Amino acid sequence: MLRYAEHRYVHLYTSCNRDFAAVMTSLPPRRRVDPDRRRRIIDATIAVIEAEGVAGTTHRRIAAVADVPLGSLTYHFTGLDELIRLAFEQVAEASSDGVLARLEQATTREEAITATVDVIAGNLWSTPQTLLLSYELYAYAARHPEIAAIMRGWMARSRAALERHFDPLTARAIDALIEGIGIHDSVDTDPLTPEQVAAVIRRVAG
Amino acid sequence: MLRYAEHRYVHLYTSCNRDFAAVMTSLPPRRRVDPDRRRRIIDATIAVIEAEGVAGTTHRRIAAVADVPLGSLTYHFTGLDELIRLAFEQVAEASSDGVLARLEQATTREEAITATVDVIAGNLWSTPQTLLLSYELYAYAARHPEIAAIMRGWMARSRAALERHFDPLTARAIDALIEGIGIHDSVDTDPLTPEQVAAVIRRVAG
Repeated sequence: MLRYAEHRYVHLYTSCNRDFAAVMTSLPPRRRVDPDRRRRIIDATIAVIEAEGVAGTTHRRIAAVADVPLGSLTYHFTGLDELIRLAFEQVAEASSDGVLARLEQATTREEAITATVDVIAGNLWSTPQTLLLSYELYAYAARHPEIAAIMRGWMARSRAALERHFDPLTARAIDALIEGIGIHDSVDTDPLTPEQVAAVIRRVAG
Repeated sequence: MLRYAEHRYVHLYTSCNRDFAAVMTSLPPRRRVDPDRRRRIIDATIAVIEAEGVAGTTHRRIAAVADVPLGSLTYHFTGLDELIRLAFEQVAEASSDGVLARLEQATTREEAITATVDVIAGNLWSTPQTLLLSYELYAYAARHPEIAAIMRGWMARSRAALERHFDPLTARAIDALIEGIGIHDSVDTDPLTPEQVAAVIRRVAG
């Protein structure tokens, strides 16, 4: 994957760690080796959390999945705690993006109800991957209360989108239904139909 | 904790494993050493899952918490998978017991609404311990689909209790609200008040 010349960079990179930027500028100008490395390490952290759970997430496994030397993790990040936090921030952002995009298409209250039904019955949030990563996030936040801020940020974004069409209490109730129905339907042998979801949302919306 | 004479039993126990019952019957009759051992090992498994997560749950940690020799686990259980399944079955049963007991006090629909509000706003289900163990259960079920049966059993019990007073769709919606509001309120800086929960339940109940 790396050309030979780049191997030297990688070697300098791993051996010099935080001095790497200085070393780079002293070398003849050429294409940056791996500008997306930081992002790729965070993506790899998400993949390892998904496969192994937070408890099984190690520097070594992340480096292997990201296909970077182990030293690259300590160069870019202060430690495993920061990596896990950034991974969960990215998960929360990515999974709320789809929900927000659908909700923001609604220009009327009626369209907002339809959008909400699409979010729930169409599993825009509750994909198998997002659900599993959410459970990992919630469990991690239960053990590390400062991480609950990520959950609060996620809730604040979806409630703000819902509050464009519903009063704050209704927005919170719908947000809780997205969560609760999403979890229950994921294991139910008989998930709610879009019509059933619509009936529940209409009742909550009053 | 064990008297000296009992140490011999423990030694026989660990060295003889499945022959222990036969050895016991050949010994002079005396008080059974540890009749609750099986239950204590399952309790210890729950404690280890709570502290370490499923990914950090090992025979060795369970044996240490249960204060039993490692061989005791293989004597009583077929393996870690069975232990984790039994632990989650016990968690699901214990945590739905409190909810069901409260719901079953209701003799009218109005009392059922009050009971539901008590369950949600009084965190009868959503204690910090039950929430954390639920996240561990959900994540484990996402990776081991046969375990989702435990979640389905739990949902079926609470829905059946709710269906004594509500139609099936309302029961499912309230069950999803118990889940969703429980999770959200556990990290919210401003959890829903009992009055707000009551307003939402009344709307869903129609």
